[in-house]
Amino acid sequence: MVRVVVLGTGYVASHLAVGLERIRKGLVKPYGVPLAKYDLPYRVEDVRVVATYDIDVAKIGKTLYDVAREVFGKEYPVPEELKGIKVREGIKLNSDKGLNIKARGLEEEIGLREAVERLADEWVELRPDVVINIISTEEAKAFNDVEALRKAIEGGSEGVSASHAYAYAAYLYAKKVGRGVAFVNAIPTPIANDPAVVKLFEDANSVVFGDDGATGATPLTADLLEHLAERNRLVEFIVQFNIGGNTDFLALTVPERNKMKEFTKSSIVKDILGYDAPHYIKPTGYLEPLGDKKFVAMHIEYLSFNGFRDSIFINARINDSPALAGMLVDLARLGKIALDRGVKGTLYEVNAFFMKKPGPADARNISKIVAFAGLMKWLGLRR
Amino acid sequence: MVRVVVLGTGYVASHLAVGLERIRKGLVKPYGVPLAKYDLPYRVEDVRVVATYDIDVAKIGKTLYDVAREVFGKEYPVPEELKGIKVREGIKLNSDKGLNIKARGLEEEIGLREAVERLADEWVELRPDVVINIISTEEAKAFNDVEALRKAIEGGSEGVSASHAYAYAAYLYAKKVGRGVAFVNAIPTPIANDPAVVKLFEDANSVVFGDDGATGATPLTADLLEHLAERNRLVEFIVQFNIGGNTDFLALTVPERNKMKEFTKSSIVKDILGYDAPHYIKPTGYLEPLGDKKFVAMHIEYLSFNGFRDSIFINARINDSPALAGMLVDLARLGKIALDRGVKGTLYEVNAFFMKKPGPADARNISKIVAFAGLMKWLGLRR
Amino acid sequence: MVRVVVLGTGYVASHLAVGLERIRKGLVKPYGVPLAKYDLPYRVEDVRVVATYDIDVAKIGKTLYDVAREVFGKEYPVPEELKGIKVREGIKLNSDKGLNIKARGLEEEIGLREAVERLADEWVELRPDVVINIISTEEAKAFNDVEALRKAIEGGSEGVSASHAYAYAAYLYAKKVGRGVAFVNAIPTPIANDPAVVKLFEDANSVVFGDDGATGATPLTADLLEHLAERNRLVEFIVQFNIGGNTDFLALTVPERNKMKEFTKSSIVKDILGYDAPHYIKPTGYLEPLGDKKFVAMHIEYLSFNGFRDSIFINARINDSPALAGMLVDLARLGKIALDRGVKGTLYEVNAFFMKKPGPADARNISKIVAFAGLMKWLGLRR
Amino acid sequence: MVRVVVLGTGYVASHLAVGLERIRKGLVKPYGVPLAKYDLPYRVEDVRVVATYDIDVAKIGKTLYDVAREVFGKEYPVPEELKGIKVREGIKLNSDKGLNIKARGLEEEIGLREAVERLADEWVELRPDVVINIISTEEAKAFNDVEALRKAIEGGSEGVSASHAYAYAAYLYAKKVGRGVAFVNAIPTPIANDPAVVKLFEDANSVVFGDDGATGATPLTADLLEHLAERNRLVEFIVQFNIGGNTDFLALTVPERNKMKEFTKSSIVKDILGYDAPHYIKPTGYLEPLGDKKFVAMHIEYLSFNGFRDSIFINARINDSPALAGMLVDLARLGKIALDRGVKGTLYEVNAFFMKKPGPADARNISKIVAFAGLMKWLGLRR
Repeated sequence: MVRVVVLGTGYVASHLAVGLERIRKGLVKPYGVPLAKYDLPYRVEDVRVVATYDIDVAKIGKTLYDVAREVFGKEYPVPEELKGIKVREGIKLNSDKGLNIKARGLEEEIGLREAVERLADEWVELRPDVVINIISTEEAKAFNDVEALRKAIEGGSEGVSASHAYAYAAYLYAKKVGRGVAFVNAIPTPIANDPAVVKLFEDANSVVFGDDGATGATPLTADLLEHLAERNRLVEFIVQFNIGGNTDFLALTVPERNKMKEFTKSSIVKDILGYDAPHYIKPTGYLEPLGDKKFVAMHIEYLSFNGFRDSIFINARINDSPALAGMLVDLARLGKIALDRGVKGTLYEVNAFFMKKPGPADARNISKIVAFAGLMKWLGLRR
Repeated sequence: MVRVVVLGTGYVASHLAVGLERIRKGLVKPYGVPLAKYDLPYRVEDVRVVATYDIDVAKIGKTLYDVAREVFGKEYPVPEELKGIKVREGIKLNSDKGLNIKARGLEEEIGLREAVERLADEWVELRPDVVINIISTEEAKAFNDVEALRKAIEGGSEGVSASHAYAYAAYLYAKKVGRGVAFVNAIPTPIANDPAVVKLFEDANSVVFGDDGATGATPLTADLLEHLAERNRLVEFIVQFNIGGNTDFLALTVPERNKMKEFTKSSIVKDILGYDAPHYIKPTGYLEPLGDKKFVAMHIEYLSFNGFRDSIFINARINDSPALAGMLVDLARLGKIALDRGVKGTLYEVNAFFMKKPGPADARNISKIVAFAGLMKWLGLRR
Repeated sequence: MVRVVVLGTGYVASHLAVGLERIRKGLVKPYGVPLAKYDLPYRVEDVRVVATYDIDVAKIGKTLYDVAREVFGKEYPVPEELKGIKVREGIKLNSDKGLNIKARGLEEEIGLREAVERLADEWVELRPDVVINIISTEEAKAFNDVEALRKAIEGGSEGVSASHAYAYAAYLYAKKVGRGVAFVNAIPTPIANDPAVVKLFEDANSVVFGDDGATGATPLTADLLEHLAERNRLVEFIVQFNIGGNTDFLALTVPERNKMKEFTKSSIVKDILGYDAPHYIKPTGYLEPLGDKKFVAMHIEYLSFNGFRDSIFINARINDSPALAGMLVDLARLGKIALDRGVKGTLYEVNAFFMKKPGPADARNISKIVAFAGLMKWLGLRR
Repeated sequence: MVRVVVLGTGYVASHLAVGLERIRKGLVKPYGVPLAKYDLPYRVEDVRVVATYDIDVAKIGKTLYDVAREVFGKEYPVPEELKGIKVREGIKLNSDKGLNIKARGLEEEIGLREAVERLADEWVELRPDVVINIISTEEAKAFNDVEALRKAIEGGSEGVSASHAYAYAAYLYAKKVGRGVAFVNAIPTPIANDPAVVKLFEDANSVVFGDDGATGATPLTADLLEHLAERNRLVEFIVQFNIGGNTDFLALTVPERNKMKEFTKSSIVKDILGYDAPHYIKPTGYLEPLGDKKFVAMHIEYLSFNGFRDSIFINARINDSPALAGMLVDLARLGKIALDRGVKGTLYEVNAFFMKKPGPADARNISKIVAFAGLMKWLGLRR
């Protein structure tokens, strides 16, 4: 079994838990789980969500069943098993800035140092193999230096992001139980790209995957760019708009959060093409009735042989949360596999395929199809 | 130098010769030539068209300069060098069926056996390293058995396609000069997929690449399908329309020719996904004012995690002939490299990337990005 | 009340009857019924399907409830009221050519003359105000001359289309009851465009609307062309592909049927633009999993001021049958209103908005927004 | 002849002057000029640009020929006649805020009151029939009250927009010459929507057309919405992105300017549909290599009959400036026609078709096809 704690209790957590139960019951096939058809040491069915965390007072204390009912609507058959998964109070810091919710965080009462200790203690009881971070995109920066991070946490500094605090709690937990933990950072906060965090996890025989789960239009763009690069076409520009109606798109209307996302999305252009083609790639807007199914519009022009110009237009409607939830199933499995294999720090082979901004900090972004080949090789699998 | 003879003197031949001259003069960069930025034994500038062939009486005897002026229009600066490339009379057989041109072929006067001999003799003088077949899509089938092919040629049988006759002439030429030749089949006729032809070329220390140059929407579809397959999404259907206004689209309004194309285009679906997702992939129509810049429309729906359905729509305007011409530059270079390395018969590593239906006959179609990795490995290159 | 008989018992008939019941129950608003928000003498709720006809032996004798269950799937709550609507045997003639069903028609046993008489007699009992023709697209041509039509029916000739026979039956029915009937021809067969039929209906104080219900991409194209024409842009070409998975698309894979559709779709180009811009507008393919929700792709290029070229690409997924069913609700109401107002023959003001090829035969096709203004004026309504 | 002064000397002014000369020389047809094919008192060829104004020190004192060379590039054959059109110094006020140019305005030296007088005096010499305002989108608001406007101009207040100052200068000019002038406001500043300006022009037997020329995606959206409204489909949402690389898109990256544009673009939704469907319609970004040819992406979902949901996706590449320039040709002609007919104040029939936010202030936005019918009626023309 792969025991999972999820930080952030919204659409993705709901899809993850609901989808896993429905797969276990045979109601749905594991589509959207990349490695489902390959033989791994842990099966899709082995992944179990044991607890989730949030800072929204409307959710804390409820069960994931209650939250999922809100997400999926009254008529959707949310599995009863979710009633057993409690939503616990997490760490807030600045992660609610600009969000329209009533929020509270453990650190507000007891200070940040105590808060991360309390989380670590809770996890000693919950025994997660993997901690998955899917809180709303927050403004954050890397610490680079372990001591700086440690001091910031212990001093309760403002400069600490909620994600960093959670990662630190995971580190403490690993130390306490004397056993590694995998921390999956599926949001843009630099965690696997922060040498401080990677160092910390090495010390605790643990592993961190990140940053920013590669779903939506960006991985598709990565493979498109590879396709163009392999034909030596000169990309003259790339436009990529996207708009959605879920909480994450609402959060991204806050400029600082949008910036975080633009950064993880744009790094692919230069890394894959080898030159920085002019591009406009960022979350573009929020429109409530689109719900979780975002609209993506992309336009690329490039020069072909003899200087002729071609044009591509792509439009898509993509369910945002299921796409990430499916990836998280494999990231959970890979987290435990990596620990079993003694991996420490971070693992580029996993990050390169699953993340928009793969760590470690100096790693190059490659196309997803190329990354998949690397992942298969690491796993010893053949397609 | 890589000396090239081109069979079929239309848009692609014109773009190939014009583009090569313009690259040599530094007027344009070698965009659209996949391997242009890598260090190969032969440079892009080394490739030279020494002669072309056709069956259109309006072209035979003219120069490629005259043909290119028709293709590009009066105001386009066609390089003077093309005046040195003569359009010679080729083999017709049934390849003009349904085409609206006045055609003649060598075999009409002197019989097929004599005609292939005469071509071989012309080539002994022209000394091509590579013969490139880009005649209009024709109805054709594989012979499978060398003796059947030989007999059909010598008997002047109706069942021989013009492409088979040209390939046979290349074989004779190689035998005569005692040196291998590379035959690049960029149209759907099964040549690299015909064990009879592959065997013949093995005997002559020669190599054949094919079949059907992977340009347009099909290679893009291949990589898109790989992208979906690597996420284990269930493709519910694929629609791919395309319409153009050049001679090849006109030829494809003849049902038998359309069939040939549908066949090479459709094989990717099952090979890449692992199941035969419902699809409608075929040349769809002809509309003159679109010219050489075809319009492609694609629509895919698939199931993601937890059974949710996503939709993708792709529209493109793609210059048909430059795309193929750019690939031919590399195919010519790779042809000579393969001969230098002693390759005989056919070479999957090249075919898998450059062709829609890569030979040999039992080979699997793989995505282009995966194929590119194989090609790089064969070449000993690193990206 | 507006009593309606429907010829052809498939997707559209099911949507029409189901939608009307759901509107009556307040389960759904009358979206897709163009005039629903205006005050007309008959309300949407007044329209009632009293019987339907078909030639598929798998449907004859069943109820519309049974058919609708097949159309909507097991889980859809088909209203119980449809159990009261019987599917009766209709006229076959050549209308099943190329369709993959086991079909039979009244005329096979008793001859065509008797068959139309029997239908007329059945309708004397059913008392329809409106007869709606939505059988599968069939190959057909206009008779032009009343006597020729009459003779063909009475002689049981092969040249009569099923639609013509049904229209003739409606005429006989009107004669028998001494009261006008409205015949709505929503398929391409020339009925409102056949002077013979129009003349016949004049004689019976009746009215015919047609031909070919304006749903899908064609009316949208009409308004787009008007938009371009009103800016004096030069349309260089129009491409319009569409593919679906319902019976009508399957029927349109038969070339003769496809031709019928191409004809009604293409007439808009010259009529609206004033010149015959190059176009490719026809049903393009059949792919079962698309079901009733067709995929449309459109591409237009035009010249703007100072000779600059713009491009438009449109993609759509459109539920084919509901779109037509919504229009039929108004056509039924307008049929009865036209009779109340003493209209005889046909009525351009209705046809111009609701039909792809508006009758009478010499009528011009105008854009739909312009046609709507004419319809509003005829109705004495203000927007 | 229709003598025209143009305020703002960039892409649009260049296209206008170049296009008119090329039409006069028979090099190009008047495509993109809506009424070109109708018989109006003034011909397209009668429209002449006599002077232009700007605040960019790099342009002031040069000729329109010099500016057009920059716009069209070295190889474009800019007509020599443009050498006779001088670029004069205009009014700056806040209109350069956030723009990256070195700007100066007449009012900086001599005060606003003197500046508008000087312009009026210049125009007494130039004798324009029509003054066209196409300066970059600026932040501005209506004055509503004539005295407030007059006081602001005379007091040299900060609250005056450059457009208001120009309109006031046109009013002074009309007073001085005792003959009406037409002021065409093709940008979002409320001019025809400002009762103060309309009142002023009435007093001077003059007419103002405005506001914000209806080019690009918005008029197309208006007609699409009308198309949907006339079928009573429930629009669930509309997304409309657009991005370009010309100065106007750069200007719109300044939030206050973007707001002005969003306002004029969004008013169509409620006015045409009758309800405020959720929408995201605003200039979305700037990307230099797109140049003057903007990329538009639109997505609409709506409910059809029986509650079924359809989707539309539209992508377009549209030359921004030629589209507006073509409209300005007719607006110039209509300006003089309106004066000839004694129209004072503003004219809804013209504004409704040509403007995104048609004045007067309380006027309703209607679809363009409906507006065109009104315009034709006012002109006494039949299509």
